[in-house]
Amino acid sequence: MNIRGIFTSCATMAALGSMAGNPSKPNIIFFLVDDMGWADSSVIYGDQTYPLNLRHHTPNMQRLAAKGTIFANAYACPVSSPTRTSLMSGMNAAHSKITDFTTAVPGVPSDASHKPDALKNDVLVHPEWNWNGISPESGIPHTVQVTPMTRLLQDDGYYTIHVGKGHWAAAGTPAASPYNLGFCVNVAGQVAGKPTSYYGKENYGNTKEMWSTFSTMNMTEYYGSDIHLTEALTREALKTLDYPVKNNLPFYLYLAHHGVHTPITPDPRFVQKYLDAGLDEGQAKYASLVEGVDKSLGDVLDYLEANDIADNTVIIFMSDNGGNSENKTKGGVLHTQNAPLREGKASCYEGGVKVPLMVYWPGKTHGSRTEIPVIAEDLYPTILEIAGISGYNTIQQIDGKSIAGLISGNEAPGISYDRELVFHFPHQWKPYPLEDIDYMTSMRKGDWKIVYRHRTGKLELYNLKDDLSERNDLSKKNKKKLREMASALSNRLRGWEAPMPTFRSDGRQIPYPDEL
Amino acid sequence: MNIRGIFTSCATMAALGSMAGNPSKPNIIFFLVDDMGWADSSVIYGDQTYPLNLRHHTPNMQRLAAKGTIFANAYACPVSSPTRTSLMSGMNAAHSKITDFTTAVPGVPSDASHKPDALKNDVLVHPEWNWNGISPESGIPHTVQVTPMTRLLQDDGYYTIHVGKGHWAAAGTPAASPYNLGFCVNVAGQVAGKPTSYYGKENYGNTKEMWSTFSTMNMTEYYGSDIHLTEALTREALKTLDYPVKNNLPFYLYLAHHGVHTPITPDPRFVQKYLDAGLDEGQAKYASLVEGVDKSLGDVLDYLEANDIADNTVIIFMSDNGGNSENKTKGGVLHTQNAPLREGKASCYEGGVKVPLMVYWPGKTHGSRTEIPVIAEDLYPTILEIAGISGYNTIQQIDGKSIAGLISGNEAPGISYDRELVFHFPHQWKPYPLEDIDYMTSMRKGDWKIVYRHRTGKLELYNLKDDLSERNDLSKKNKKKLREMASALSNRLRGWEAPMPTFRSDGRQIPYPDEL
Repeated sequence: MNIRGIFTSCATMAALGSMAGNPSKPNIIFFLVDDMGWADSSVIYGDQTYPLNLRHHTPNMQRLAAKGTIFANAYACPVSSPTRTSLMSGMNAAHSKITDFTTAVPGVPSDASHKPDALKNDVLVHPEWNWNGISPESGIPHTVQVTPMTRLLQDDGYYTIHVGKGHWAAAGTPAASPYNLGFCVNVAGQVAGKPTSYYGKENYGNTKEMWSTFSTMNMTEYYGSDIHLTEALTREALKTLDYPVKNNLPFYLYLAHHGVHTPITPDPRFVQKYLDAGLDEGQAKYASLVEGVDKSLGDVLDYLEANDIADNTVIIFMSDNGGNSENKTKGGVLHTQNAPLREGKASCYEGGVKVPLMVYWPGKTHGSRTEIPVIAEDLYPTILEIAGISGYNTIQQIDGKSIAGLISGNEAPGISYDRELVFHFPHQWKPYPLEDIDYMTSMRKGDWKIVYRHRTGKLELYNLKDDLSERNDLSKKNKKKLREMASALSNRLRGWEAPMPTFRSDGRQIPYPDEL
Repeated sequence: MNIRGIFTSCATMAALGSMAGNPSKPNIIFFLVDDMGWADSSVIYGDQTYPLNLRHHTPNMQRLAAKGTIFANAYACPVSSPTRTSLMSGMNAAHSKITDFTTAVPGVPSDASHKPDALKNDVLVHPEWNWNGISPESGIPHTVQVTPMTRLLQDDGYYTIHVGKGHWAAAGTPAASPYNLGFCVNVAGQVAGKPTSYYGKENYGNTKEMWSTFSTMNMTEYYGSDIHLTEALTREALKTLDYPVKNNLPFYLYLAHHGVHTPITPDPRFVQKYLDAGLDEGQAKYASLVEGVDKSLGDVLDYLEANDIADNTVIIFMSDNGGNSENKTKGGVLHTQNAPLREGKASCYEGGVKVPLMVYWPGKTHGSRTEIPVIAEDLYPTILEIAGISGYNTIQQIDGKSIAGLISGNEAPGISYDRELVFHFPHQWKPYPLEDIDYMTSMRKGDWKIVYRHRTGKLELYNLKDDLSERNDLSKKNKKKLREMASALSNRLRGWEAPMPTFRSDGRQIPYPDEL
């Protein structure tokens, strides 16, 4: 029998055994880290090695990078829920109107707007936005109805597994259950945006003293143990793979770690070496969380090899937003922790939105790097293309473009270096104001970046090729480019009917950038 | 993938072709109710209609009974965990040494023995027992290592789903995770023996004020809603069936409701009609919980019909022990709530161990009834026989016998009317003593029942055919039968090395029945 004959025979058998076991269907693992900065690993995403790249030991991320494609200019939203819902909807957050994090308390928005005292002296008022996140059903208040990417995967026969952090919908709404989004299996996935505790000894926050709506579910096995939450989630994830692997069902594993989000507490397996290396206590704790996630990635890679499916499993590695630069427990100096990038999580400067992204696609990637800018919502059509699913219908209009071509070192239709990528955060993040973080919109187009500060009505212009750290505002020097960028950004915001803050003084909406 | 990989894949698919979509593999649903008494429904398990049968409206249980096989003399253990672990192990509780309920707090036994004050005046001391439940791994203290029934089902290709109450292992041990027991999917399953709240409005106990280790997980979607927990678990269960149904994978759904366990709070959908019918408040609340479970069963039956799989889905309906007769919130008069049976939950009298059991097996059952006594551990080999799985190896020695033959109206090898069925509860149940409940062992053999009260060393003998209510002690009148029964029971206990209490006074083990 020749090769073609074997494949024909396989196809016949696959048809007999329903849709299961189609060898043209790769498994897909989405390995999502929480709040990990662009330079927080020993994988070099930039065009040079920065001090942060030398700080954390992430050998397994390097192991993946060595055979994958690194995206030097990958972007997400400035905070968690907008990115996570963009992955599930394919929509830009300014379009879905999910511009801040969704709520764990039914009926109560989780952004600073539900604490009016926090905002009463501000010149701006938060806009209406979809604080209940996505919904697979119509008629749910403060949601955007979408066809979730995982629904299309499951409908195509994929065995879809959700492990870890959900945070794409509010408690009390349909999308709070991953089973409503096309997931077959849900381990620990719920609405919470962070863990109460990383420690088995503390039952991951499931004690009378510690319990909160953020306490991790489905981890009872490890209560009272020394098992770190990152490790526990990994072990549970790998257990859930046994059935699809044994039965030759293509799987999609969404392994969404809580690490390296706050609380910044030490992972005892790794913290001492970072203290020994001279990091301060906060930096060492954070480094230990990062290395815990790296160990998890290694365990996943080992599992795939041990089960002989590494050659048919695509791995997408990403963080949901930039590293947190406004938390003292991380050590170091606030607002500098993502150097060379400016600021961090929740900001529309590079530190908040530029994220690590790399993809391993067996047979198609070979340890290369691309400079072409890509954004979270691109992953929706990308994953479906990798899965070989086309011609699908969705309720929502997809903003992302498939980057499958870029992953394999080719062209990708609709994607150029000059594509407009929009970041929109019309909120105050914390109960106190933060100048370089709150109420911002920005857009990258080629090497240019426009930044709009809502409170002051000020526009800034940067050339990222020359000025990755966004310190040299060219808005006065290059008014033509500023006008061009302001116009393009305004068109995007108008077209999407993006939620815009209003002035407290007179209730008017703030101007679009091209009106300034 | 190389050539060898292709061949491996082909072989796997060929194997799969014989499994997936194989019409000889029926789906199996185990519908387990918690604490529902033998006469608590309008299905008549006995040989006459008792007043309790007329109290609760359970049309869907009748709908199942009309096409299934009713077991008039089905038994379980007197409390939850022993029954649930017997289903997973095929072992009698006296053999597995899981004789009381397992713990939700790591390292702390949950039976009354961890409250020494509760027992300090008793003549007896609790024996060592496996208060950590079952374990799929060796070396876990206070567990019995078993090959779980669901592991064999999953290994055979069954898509195995756990929904609701687990309670077969302690927090902090491997079996606290259903993923370690051969389940593909776990919804809400953990170690808890009861819910904190049945109400969506109370987030099923997931609030700062109410939270306990019993608060139900994975129900975030329904937080703040009017959805009753029984309804929520049913909806989640049916969602998880979509993938196996669509992909023609045989499934095993273990739908283990918390209803009708305490807290006895009203199900608003059904309570008023029972108040209108003149029941007292407690009775009406309990009735509403029962009817909620009945509605769930109806929803399951409707789903199977709507999805055209009713003709290939076996349904096993059962309760885990007798109705609770020691809880004032149930209304009525304590210790009479299982009339005509004596006592209730935790007792080795009929009220504690005789349970509703019926099985629908498409094409094999036709609304009949069998008097042959059967017991919880029989379900292990029964389910595997229904699934067509034979020649399996288990770590543990299986005590149960397959009742598959009885279900279809035929003989069942190893099962006669005279089989010895043992119930063993070497514990004080509550923090206070209960004469007809604590420290008892009993055995049914044919129409005869021997009851051993450990505290007093008294043996009783009943003929259940004439005296279903166990009120006419024949131990003095029929000493020959008593000796015969005492000998048989003692042999069982010795053979299994059943845990036996000791005397507080001198530390000696209590006598076996044939030593009295």
